[in-house]
Amino acid sequence: MPTYAIGVDLGGTNLRIAAVDDQGKVLEKVTTGTNVKQGRDFVIGEMTTAIQTLAAKIGAKGLLGVGIGVPGIIDMDTGTLHESPNLPGWHDYPVRNEIERRLGTPIVLENDANAAALGEKWLGAAREHDDMCMLTLGTGVGGGIVLGGRVWHGMNGMAGELGHINVEPEGPPCGCGSRGCLEQFASATALVRMAREAVAGGKSPELARAMGDNAEFSAKMLHQLAQQGNTAARDIFARAGRALGIVLAGLINIFNLPNYVLGGGVANAWDMFSPAMMEEIRQRSFIYRATAPDQTPTLRKRTVVAPALLGSDAGLLGAARLPMLSREEASSQ
Amino acid sequence: MPTYAIGVDLGGTNLRIAAVDDQGKVLEKVTTGTNVKQGRDFVIGEMTTAIQTLAAKIGAKGLLGVGIGVPGIIDMDTGTLHESPNLPGWHDYPVRNEIERRLGTPIVLENDANAAALGEKWLGAAREHDDMCMLTLGTGVGGGIVLGGRVWHGMNGMAGELGHINVEPEGPPCGCGSRGCLEQFASATALVRMAREAVAGGKSPELARAMGDNAEFSAKMLHQLAQQGNTAARDIFARAGRALGIVLAGLINIFNLPNYVLGGGVANAWDMFSPAMMEEIRQRSFIYRATAPDQTPTLRKRTVVAPALLGSDAGLLGAARLPMLSREEASSQ
Repeated sequence: MPTYAIGVDLGGTNLRIAAVDDQGKVLEKVTTGTNVKQGRDFVIGEMTTAIQTLAAKIGAKGLLGVGIGVPGIIDMDTGTLHESPNLPGWHDYPVRNEIERRLGTPIVLENDANAAALGEKWLGAAREHDDMCMLTLGTGVGGGIVLGGRVWHGMNGMAGELGHINVEPEGPPCGCGSRGCLEQFASATALVRMAREAVAGGKSPELARAMGDNAEFSAKMLHQLAQQGNTAARDIFARAGRALGIVLAGLINIFNLPNYVLGGGVANAWDMFSPAMMEEIRQRSFIYRATAPDQTPTLRKRTVVAPALLGSDAGLLGAARLPMLSREEASSQ
Repeated sequence: MPTYAIGVDLGGTNLRIAAVDDQGKVLEKVTTGTNVKQGRDFVIGEMTTAIQTLAAKIGAKGLLGVGIGVPGIIDMDTGTLHESPNLPGWHDYPVRNEIERRLGTPIVLENDANAAALGEKWLGAAREHDDMCMLTLGTGVGGGIVLGGRVWHGMNGMAGELGHINVEPEGPPCGCGSRGCLEQFASATALVRMAREAVAGGKSPELARAMGDNAEFSAKMLHQLAQQGNTAARDIFARAGRALGIVLAGLINIFNLPNYVLGGGVANAWDMFSPAMMEEIRQRSFIYRATAPDQTPTLRKRTVVAPALLGSDAGLLGAARLPMLSREEASSQ
């Protein structure tokens, strides 16, 4: 019977559950919709049933534990969700206790972006390093910091909100209360907003034609336009790249890590935003210049900025990794 | 015979050496000028002689080790200075090996801003916390990050360059190669530059009169003018405060630490820059709002932003702490 953990990626749209062995091999994977509208009790009921079914199928004896990645800010002390825009009605709900009660087994909760960072550290772009950070460029911009192989939580579990680092002090207002956060330039939402602004400003008839009155116009479509040579679309990706570069240069100057990883849907447009991003990083971080593989480094250890490798599985695999790390920690004490 | 360590603060102007016991009590302190112009061999000779004299006086048997804070970036792997504007001619010099050879005892080198952070963590503003970071607002802006009671060095020892986090992407050019770094708004040099700009722009005849053609006009004098009600001087401190607030909000969103400490000479103008700084932090960091003593916090653990307590002794005390931590680490392995 294999030794394995169960990882759960509880998204606002999809609920994904996998049994993963301690080498990172996925033994079994289940994907279903997250019926958020039916309420949290329904969602938790579906999740616990699916976990139990999976555990019974593979063998309850080999189960090391259950890790769950949740979109939102978790108060690590209490195991409650402090804030979660994608899970309305879950605010201050004792998620951890409730799931533990239903499953009868301890679980480990983690913010979804932190889980993705841990996944990329374990099996992805940063697998050769114990220290890394990851930006997840999706609907919003999430972040995760891994130091010494463990997620850096900070005192309340709120650390790693890298999408809310400032880029332009007087830039577009952000849902967090600030203005000009990275999220306002490098999320899928921001890319579409910038495209609409370009069209409204009459800057690109070509982009206006392509967007038409398509209410579903997406960052992915903008990427295709950019790849086809649309100048306005390319400018928008360059603007996103510049913002990413400013923030990454700051993170390099702060942390001096070996690895900075970019994941999430928008990271698929690497070809379009990375030239501007790398240019900003080179210009703005003397630590990067002293240590980068694309420079003439003066120091031996290198700074690498790279796209994520695990795609949408990063969070799921990272979630499965959580109970394994908890066990390691417990046995080393 | 007491158990103690020797801390050295090797500044560009002053060389300060202290014997400090393991409770942080200063047993003996020596201050002399750093005769940088006489060359590194001379300076190192003076330093090693002073250390030996001090050790002989207090008792060589109780000496736990020697820690030295150096202005510049240290390659921790090799113990060489990678960059040090205030110590010309020391570039790529094997500082650690050379001092160890002369003293016949292992030493611990540390960047001066990191040593100051460690001092404030040990005995100063952050003494109740294991995790903190410190900004040192002097001629430039230095930074130090302490996680789990230890300085966070990053992979090459270059971490904590918090003075080069971006504030205004198109702001004043910085010596680091970027533009609009924190250092260009919140260092003593930047304050004087902003005062000269205000005078050149004809914005304040009052400030122009006060500055006259005084080539020695300093940030301290600007602070006195601001305290006397000079509007232009106050505006400059508000601008510094805003830049500090933008960067601190970012650090709070990144790290979620309990303590952020501001030291260095400019921090003495706390009364003049902190209102603008705190306003920016409140506006730009939802983590601060959820955890701050000056808000209605929704989480139990608090975020404190506070002035340093140890003044110019922070770096000296932190340097003395270094060999104590090395011993603790060695004995716990």
